[in-house]
Amino acid sequence: MRSRVSSFQSCLDSYHIDAYLVTHHAQVSYLTGVLCEDSWLLVTSRRAYFLTDARYYDEMGAKLHGVQMVLCRALVKDACRLIQRRRLKRVGFDERHISHFVFKQLAAGMDPGVSLVAKNRAVDVMREQKDAEEVAAIRACLVLNKQLFRVVGRTLAPGISEYEILARMERFVKLKKVSFSFPPIVASGPHSAYPHARVTERRLLGNDVLLVDTGIQQDGYKSDLTRMFFLGKITPLARKVYDAVAESQQAAIAKIRPAVPAAVVDREARKYLENKNLDKYFCHSLGHGVGLEIHESPQLSAVSQDILKPGMVVTVEPGVYLQGRFGVRIEDMVLVTDTGCEILSK
Amino acid sequence: MRSRVSSFQSCLDSYHIDAYLVTHHAQVSYLTGVLCEDSWLLVTSRRAYFLTDARYYDEMGAKLHGVQMVLCRALVKDACRLIQRRRLKRVGFDERHISHFVFKQLAAGMDPGVSLVAKNRAVDVMREQKDAEEVAAIRACLVLNKQLFRVVGRTLAPGISEYEILARMERFVKLKKVSFSFPPIVASGPHSAYPHARVTERRLLGNDVLLVDTGIQQDGYKSDLTRMFFLGKITPLARKVYDAVAESQQAAIAKIRPAVPAAVVDREARKYLENKNLDKYFCHSLGHGVGLEIHESPQLSAVSQDILKPGMVVTVEPGVYLQGRFGVRIEDMVLVTDTGCEILSK
Repeated sequence: MRSRVSSFQSCLDSYHIDAYLVTHHAQVSYLTGVLCEDSWLLVTSRRAYFLTDARYYDEMGAKLHGVQMVLCRALVKDACRLIQRRRLKRVGFDERHISHFVFKQLAAGMDPGVSLVAKNRAVDVMREQKDAEEVAAIRACLVLNKQLFRVVGRTLAPGISEYEILARMERFVKLKKVSFSFPPIVASGPHSAYPHARVTERRLLGNDVLLVDTGIQQDGYKSDLTRMFFLGKITPLARKVYDAVAESQQAAIAKIRPAVPAAVVDREARKYLENKNLDKYFCHSLGHGVGLEIHESPQLSAVSQDILKPGMVVTVEPGVYLQGRFGVRIEDMVLVTDTGCEILSK
Repeated sequence: MRSRVSSFQSCLDSYHIDAYLVTHHAQVSYLTGVLCEDSWLLVTSRRAYFLTDARYYDEMGAKLHGVQMVLCRALVKDACRLIQRRRLKRVGFDERHISHFVFKQLAAGMDPGVSLVAKNRAVDVMREQKDAEEVAAIRACLVLNKQLFRVVGRTLAPGISEYEILARMERFVKLKKVSFSFPPIVASGPHSAYPHARVTERRLLGNDVLLVDTGIQQDGYKSDLTRMFFLGKITPLARKVYDAVAESQQAAIAKIRPAVPAAVVDREARKYLENKNLDKYFCHSLGHGVGLEIHESPQLSAVSQDILKPGMVVTVEPGVYLQGRFGVRIEDMVLVTDTGCEILSK
C-alpha cells in the first residue's frame, strides 16, 4: 500500500510541515495497509518510519514493505529521537488521537527548534473517500451482515432469549471466520427503546418487537446495519412508527449526493419525523462514516461541518424511541457516488 | 457504590481541588459501580454528577443512585457549563484520559477564573488496591479461566488449527455467559515466538508447542493467564526454556510483598533468566495490574515507579521468545496480601 503513503507525502507541503506523526491505529493501518496497534508512523517527505516495540517488531517487519522499521523501547522518547535525527522542524499530528499527557511528553522531549503542528484531519480526509478496494471490502462485510440477519430471522420464536439470539449470531460469525465489528445490540420489547441497550436474558413474548444492530468485520473493514423484527401481530402504533422511520430514512437517502452538506441529510430525516410528531423521540445523530473504524468521518448530524464527497460510505439510521414501550431504528449503509448514491445494503 | 464516591470526595482537599472531572470509562465505572461508556463523572466535595447523552441517560439513570444525572448534548460544553454553574474554581482531571483536542476545548470553554489541574492518578491509586468484593470478582473470572484451559487441553491433537481451538474456547465462554477480557492468543509452533501473535489457520503438528494467553471478563472484572501446551514429545531445548521461565516466575513471585518496588520484582525475573543466558529473549515487561481493565496500574517493569501495596492484583508473566523456533510464556495472577502474596491462579 506504498501508494497511500506516497499520496500522503505529497500533501505535507500544503500543510506547511516537513513530517507527520501518525499516532492512531486506524490511520497507521490505512497508510501502511497492515492492521496494527500500539505503533506509530512518522511520514517525512521521502520516507516513512514504523515505530513499534518488541512485541510487534518481527511480525510487522515481515509484512511491511517500503517502510523503515524502528524498534522502540519507549514510543514517545524514540519518536523524539528520530525527529531530532532526521532534523525535522515542523511535525504535524492529530490532537484527537494523542492524550494531553503524551502531548506534553512529546513537547518536552523535542529540541527547542521543533514545532508540533496540529493538523487534525490530514489522514482522515484521505480515509473519508474510499477507493474501489475499500468499497469492495465493505461490500464483502455487508453480504455476511445480511446473511446474519437471516440467521436472526430463523431463530425467532416466543420464548427465545436475547442472549440465545446473540449466541446463534456468534456461531454464524465464527463459522464464517470473521468477527463482529462491535458488540451487537439485541434488544427486545421495551429494551428496544434504549438506543444502546445491553443484551439480557429477557425472553421474547408473543407479540414482541426486536431491534438488532450488528456489523461484520473482515480484514479490518467493517459494516453496520440495524433491522427490526416483529413477532406475531404488529400493533398499529408499531406499524405507524416503523413506516415513519423507514420513510424518514428514504427521504434522507434521497438527499445524498456529492457537495451536499451532511447536516442537510440529517435535517431531512428529522423534518420528516417532525411532520409525524415523532422528531422528539429521535435522540441521536443520523449516521456516521464506516471503514477501518466503526465510527469515522464524516458525521451525519445537525452540527456536522462535513460535505459529502464521492467514495464516502455512511450509515443512515433514523430511530424513534418510546420509553417504556419500544423503539424502532432502521440502519443502512450508503455509498456516495459521482452523481448520487448507492444503498450498499440493499 | 456510593462509598467509593465518598472516599474519593474526602481526597479532594488533599489534592487542593474543589472537584474532579472523571473522563475515563473504567474510572467512572469504578466510582459509580455501573459499567458505562462515553460518560463522564464530575465529583465535587458534596455531590457527583453523571454526564451522559440520550443513548444512555434513561438506562443509567435507572441504575445509578446517589448521583445526579445530567443529560448532555455535547459532553465538553455541558461539563463546562456545569463547572461554571457550580462555581468550581480548581477542577482536577487525568491528562492520560483526555485527548489533547478535548483538553483544549475544555480549557477554552471554561471561565477565566477556573483552572484545570492535572492530578493523573487520583482515581487509579484507589483502584490499585482491590477491596474484598473486587478480589472475589477476579477470583470468579479465574475459576472460569482455568476451566477454559482444560477445554484447550482436551481439544489438542495433531491436525487441529489454532482457529479451531479458538472456536472451542469461544463456545465455552458463550455457554458460561461471560466473555473474553481480550482477544485470545493461540500461537502454535514458530508463531509462539511472537509475543502478541494473531490466531491463524496453522494446524498443529505432532511435536508442537502451543501458547495460549487468554482471560475471562465477568461483570466488568477481568482475568489474564498464559499456559503452554506441548504435543507429543517435548524437545530438550523446549524443556530447558520452559523450566527456566517457570523458575524465573517463581523467583519473581517470591519477592512480592507490600512495600517492595515493582521494578525489583521485574529485575528478579530478568536476573534469573540472565543466569541461563536467556534474558535477551525476554523482550517485554514482567506484568501489570488487572481489574476493571486488562492493563491497569501498577506496572511490573524495569522502569516502574510503583510500590507494591496490599490488595494489588498483578500478572507475573516472564517469557522467552526464540524467533523462528518457538516461544514460552507463563502467566499467573498474584494478589499482594498484608504479609506477602497469594497466587490467585494456583
